[in-house]
Amino acid sequence: MSRQVTQTKTRRATPARITAVDTYDIRFPTSHRLEGSDAMHSDPDYSAAYVIIRTDAANSPEGHGFCFTIGRGNEVEVAAIDALRPLVIGRSLDEIFDDLGGFYGILVGDSQLRWLGPEKGVIHMAVAAVVNAVWDLHAKREGKPLWKLLSDLTPEQIVALLDFRYLTDALTPDEALDILRRALPGKAERESRLHADGYPAYTTSPGWLGYSDDRLAALAGGAVADGFTQIKIKVGGELADDIRRCRITRQVIGPDFRMALDANQRWDVAEAIEWTGRLAEFAPYWIEEPTSPDDILGHAAIRRAVAPVKVATGEHAANRVIFKQLLQAGAIDILQLDACRVGGVNENLAILLLAAKFGIPVCPHAGGLGLCELVQHLAMFDYLAVSGTLQDRTLEYVDHLHEHFADPVVIRKGRYAAPTVPGFGATMRPESRRAYTYPHGSAWDRAPAGDVHPGEASE
Amino acid sequence: MSRQVTQTKTRRATPARITAVDTYDIRFPTSHRLEGSDAMHSDPDYSAAYVIIRTDAANSPEGHGFCFTIGRGNEVEVAAIDALRPLVIGRSLDEIFDDLGGFYGILVGDSQLRWLGPEKGVIHMAVAAVVNAVWDLHAKREGKPLWKLLSDLTPEQIVALLDFRYLTDALTPDEALDILRRALPGKAERESRLHADGYPAYTTSPGWLGYSDDRLAALAGGAVADGFTQIKIKVGGELADDIRRCRITRQVIGPDFRMALDANQRWDVAEAIEWTGRLAEFAPYWIEEPTSPDDILGHAAIRRAVAPVKVATGEHAANRVIFKQLLQAGAIDILQLDACRVGGVNENLAILLLAAKFGIPVCPHAGGLGLCELVQHLAMFDYLAVSGTLQDRTLEYVDHLHEHFADPVVIRKGRYAAPTVPGFGATMRPESRRAYTYPHGSAWDRAPAGDVHPGEASE
Repeated sequence: MSRQVTQTKTRRATPARITAVDTYDIRFPTSHRLEGSDAMHSDPDYSAAYVIIRTDAANSPEGHGFCFTIGRGNEVEVAAIDALRPLVIGRSLDEIFDDLGGFYGILVGDSQLRWLGPEKGVIHMAVAAVVNAVWDLHAKREGKPLWKLLSDLTPEQIVALLDFRYLTDALTPDEALDILRRALPGKAERESRLHADGYPAYTTSPGWLGYSDDRLAALAGGAVADGFTQIKIKVGGELADDIRRCRITRQVIGPDFRMALDANQRWDVAEAIEWTGRLAEFAPYWIEEPTSPDDILGHAAIRRAVAPVKVATGEHAANRVIFKQLLQAGAIDILQLDACRVGGVNENLAILLLAAKFGIPVCPHAGGLGLCELVQHLAMFDYLAVSGTLQDRTLEYVDHLHEHFADPVVIRKGRYAAPTVPGFGATMRPESRRAYTYPHGSAWDRAPAGDVHPGEASE
Repeated sequence: MSRQVTQTKTRRATPARITAVDTYDIRFPTSHRLEGSDAMHSDPDYSAAYVIIRTDAANSPEGHGFCFTIGRGNEVEVAAIDALRPLVIGRSLDEIFDDLGGFYGILVGDSQLRWLGPEKGVIHMAVAAVVNAVWDLHAKREGKPLWKLLSDLTPEQIVALLDFRYLTDALTPDEALDILRRALPGKAERESRLHADGYPAYTTSPGWLGYSDDRLAALAGGAVADGFTQIKIKVGGELADDIRRCRITRQVIGPDFRMALDANQRWDVAEAIEWTGRLAEFAPYWIEEPTSPDDILGHAAIRRAVAPVKVATGEHAANRVIFKQLLQAGAIDILQLDACRVGGVNENLAILLLAAKFGIPVCPHAGGLGLCELVQHLAMFDYLAVSGTLQDRTLEYVDHLHEHFADPVVIRKGRYAAPTVPGFGATMRPESRRAYTYPHGSAWDRAPAGDVHPGEASE
């Protein structure tokens, strides 16, 4: 830590600035193994529109961040990050780190770029990549993992990071302060427990729709043995398949182990109610993304009809306004935030506070490419400084592509170990970045034809 | 029309295909004159991510379409249209025109690209540009303006164009058929009236936030004299300014002329209720975009509080699922669809039918660049084949940039004349396309520094 103190002093003396916002189109040809296959996304190539922020500070680390996509269109996200570059280049680090709430506001509030959302889809995910990269840089310079940096902030400092626009009918700054202050007692003790025991996790690895029954059974059994709290199965393709796969899973994991289902937006409201009802005999814990991620009232209707099966959603919820309404409408039992679909750390802090206000547990979305590495920091911050509890909390885990990150997640006995390396965990290993750069990295030269487009192939 | 018949026969005999999907980044330096300025968008440069679809059919017209943006980020929309190209190139025109519902489904349903939305923001606006360009091509080949092509379809043909996914809890295919069949009687008579009298319009030209009081007064007086049904004023900057501008406008237009207000997403829920209340003495007809376009429950709360002032929104509503909920929640009095924010003609037909189901009038958003040229077709189709009425209908009109289009809208006595030229009206004049191509067109060479970014300028 002594080096860090020196750095901080140096930073105050010289006006260090951001000198580069470099983007990379990185794709993994995962589609040929059906990893990640679900009822709506049959052939994902897990990808990142990746950004590295560089500075002119002596010995300064870089800030790394990315948007997660599933292949085609990753270049559109890269273009969106490029469009944000003029808002970032040349700014001093002091100016940014002294007011990270203001910096976030500059990115989401640009009077021309906001038309592309507003605050949703491609442009908002690009904001997430840049905001998260700046937080990564900040945490590295402070010598702390992000969860620790955040949980060491005062309630007042945290509230200053949030954009309350469109939220005040559900959460005011004063209410946010109250929530954070109520969580102060016991924080040190929770941090000790986090270091000792880690954060509970569940696994989605067994349940991809493209996997065989044998593979499902073997992986489900392994998940129980490994100490996970829950398993998740993809559903929504064919009902007969879902019934068979739920039966197999339930037989393997026994009657008391939690089994969640994930429909990936497959159904209309009535269909979601009917289909979930047909799977109720297998006692699912939650049904995830039963319908459109935009359909607040639809989720509320489904929740009323399928109880005691819980309703979970959020990985595709576009922003805090959607989450606010899911909570106001009583539409969800479980809130599944994503580290880089909404506008990055700042907006996710607001979402954690909204969830706490409404008493709804947050079980973040992960998997994909690097999402576990990122979102663990937010879940741990929630435990230490917002909700103050692990009750009904569990963090998604998917066992692939971690080897490409400089500081991959560590899972012990089915739980996430608290990261100790400074930063936000987004840093990809340089050799992986090079090899999987699309379309000219070495991995794509030798990859199967995962990128050939259905439309092209048929011609 | 005889040439058209021949073309149709030729089309059946040869497998004509789409050979090019060419994109253009076109921007108008409007920011230096404060046209389009509002409480959230202080300096728009009206822009189009423009697409031309070309075929190998002999003597075939081109299909033109675009996304409207307000400057920076237009290149991101161009990249998104480029990402759709492989889904379009090489397809036969017969295949597309025989099943335009299926073609729409291919664009919105791509298993990798949908991750960028789903069905919202940059990627969905790109779908709109391509879908609308294909409809433009179709209408040109059939020798009809789009409104006429659409209203000549049978109810069954129209229903086949729609994607009912996520809609069936509010609108089923059978209900849509019923609505369309109920509108059949009197259709020919309404078409005659449309040709004779045009479609009622209101004007936003006087009310931009950046205009002086004198200019506002002069333009407001002109709007009444010109025969428009309504005037619209931008609000939400400073309350004292809004009170003064509303007073001036009301004095000029008299007590009985409709005056709408537009806050362009400026407020939180409580603020919207309070601010609208402060302007109630000027008897506004509607308050438009009082808060976030994603906030269905917020709009419902505002509507309950500000009645009899009506609540209008929709130009930034991301898709049919948001519109469905605005209607289900009783959140709006006026539905303002946009021709190219949702997924183009197909999704807008669904939205028109949803509005009819709930008995809410559609008063489309227009202005911008070419939006009047497009959306008039949808409003006229609604009159002829869906709602069957002009009661409380009025179509936005803004008086700028029409001269850049091959077939600009015609306004007579404050009403839109029914277009007679085949197509969807999107075709920009080639010389304008060239001159305003960004950043190397001749208009940008001589333009003031409207593109210099605030962040860059301060360095």
